[in-house]
Amino acid sequence: MAINMFGLIVSGRLVQTDFVSVDVNKCLITIQNADDINHVVVFMTGSQPFPEGMAGTVYFSFPDPLSPPTWIYLGFISNDKPSAIFKITKLKPTTDTNVLASGDSRGFGFAQPIVSHVAQIGISTEPMAVISQMVSDPNANPTQQNNFDDFAVKAAENLFNYCTSFSNSLQQFLNSPLNGQQFIPMSTIQQWYENFTRRLRQNPHFWRN
Amino acid sequence: MAINMFGLIVSGRLVQTDFVSVDVNKCLITIQNADDINHVVVFMTGSQPFPEGMAGTVYFSFPDPLSPPTWIYLGFISNDKPSAIFKITKLKPTTDTNVLASGDSRGFGFAQPIVSHVAQIGISTEPMAVISQMVSDPNANPTQQNNFDDFAVKAAENLFNYCTSFSNSLQQFLNSPLNGQQFIPMSTIQQWYENFTRRLRQNPHFWRN
Repeated sequence: MAINMFGLIVSGRLVQTDFVSVDVNKCLITIQNADDINHVVVFMTGSQPFPEGMAGTVYFSFPDPLSPPTWIYLGFISNDKPSAIFKITKLKPTTDTNVLASGDSRGFGFAQPIVSHVAQIGISTEPMAVISQMVSDPNANPTQQNNFDDFAVKAAENLFNYCTSFSNSLQQFLNSPLNGQQFIPMSTIQQWYENFTRRLRQNPHFWRN
Repeated sequence: MAINMFGLIVSGRLVQTDFVSVDVNKCLITIQNADDINHVVVFMTGSQPFPEGMAGTVYFSFPDPLSPPTWIYLGFISNDKPSAIFKITKLKPTTDTNVLASGDSRGFGFAQPIVSHVAQIGISTEPMAVISQMVSDPNANPTQQNNFDDFAVKAAENLFNYCTSFSNSLQQFLNSPLNGQQFIPMSTIQQWYENFTRRLRQNPHFWRN
C-alpha cells in the first residue's frame, strides 16, 4: 500500500500526507491536539488507485492510554468515491473527571484521568464485497435527513408519552371539569408523525416555509 | 500567485489542483457536473504560504449563461487556517422551469431555461485587514447546530399546529366514529409544547436520551 496514496485534512489545518504503513494493507496517521476537531477529510491523492475490487475502509481512534484502542468505522473511500468528509465531533469521549477519584493507582495518584489528546485515522484496504456489508457509525455520517427523522420520532414519542398520562375516554372527560375544552384523539399524534416524515422524504426543507 | 498553492476537494470526488490564474492575485477552478454537490474543501497545499498579512478569500459562482456571474463569498483560508469546508447546497439556484415560458428569445424557443451545470471556486489574495470586515454568506457555513435548532423548533410547532387543527369539542367527537378512542385535552398539548420547547432551548439534544 503506497503511503502517498492518501491525504488527510483536519478542517482548519494544513493537509497531511504522513500516513505510516502498519501492515501490508493498513496505514494510519496521527492527528495532534485532537480535542477540538470536528471534521476530517480523507482523500486519495490520485497517485495510485486501489486494486480492482478493493477500497479503503476508514477508521477513527481516540486513543485512551488506560485501555486498548477502539477503532470506530467511519466509512470508505474508493476509486469511484475518492474523497469523503467525516464528522467526528460526537465520536470523542467525554472527559470524566471522576474516573480516578477512588485513588486508582493507574493514575498519578490525583483524581484526574490521563486523557490523550491525539487521535488516529486508519485506512485498511479491503474487498468491496466485504465493505458493502459494513455499517458505519451513525454519528460519523449523520445525514441531515437521519437527524431530522430521529427528531421527529422522538418528538412524537415524547408527546405521546406525555399525553398518555393525561388521556382518557370521551365519557370520562364528559364527567370532568375539562369538558368545556377542545380535545384531540390520540391517533392524531401517530398521523402527524407519518405525515411529517413523509413530507421530509419528499422535501427535506419543506418545514422552513 | 502560484497556482499550485491551492487544492480543492468536492466531497466524493478526486482532489483537484487545476486552479487557473485570472489576475495577479486571483485564481479560479471549475467544477464539472456541479448540480449535486454539497460540500467543498478548499485548502493550501503547503507549497507556498500567503505573504505576511495576506490571506485568501474564497468565492463560489454557479454561472448562469443568461446573466453576469454572481460571486458568493464563502469565507477565507490563511496561513493560520489553511483549510476550510464549505457547504454549498443552498447556494445553488433552483431551476425555474417557467423562466422562459413566455417564449423569451434568449432561450432555444422552448419553454426551458438554459441551465449551466458547472460551478466555479475563486480565490483572491487580500489583506487580512480587509477580510476581517467581510461577512460570509450564512448559507455557506451553517453550523449543523443552527440548522438543527431551527428544525427542532419548527417541528414542535408543526406538531402543535397539526394537533390544533384536529381538535374539537367532546360533543362533536361523541357523534363521530372516533368516539371509542382515548382523547387528550388541548391544554395538555399546550403544556407539552411549552415544556418541550423550553427544554430544547436549554439543551437542544435533551431529546436524544
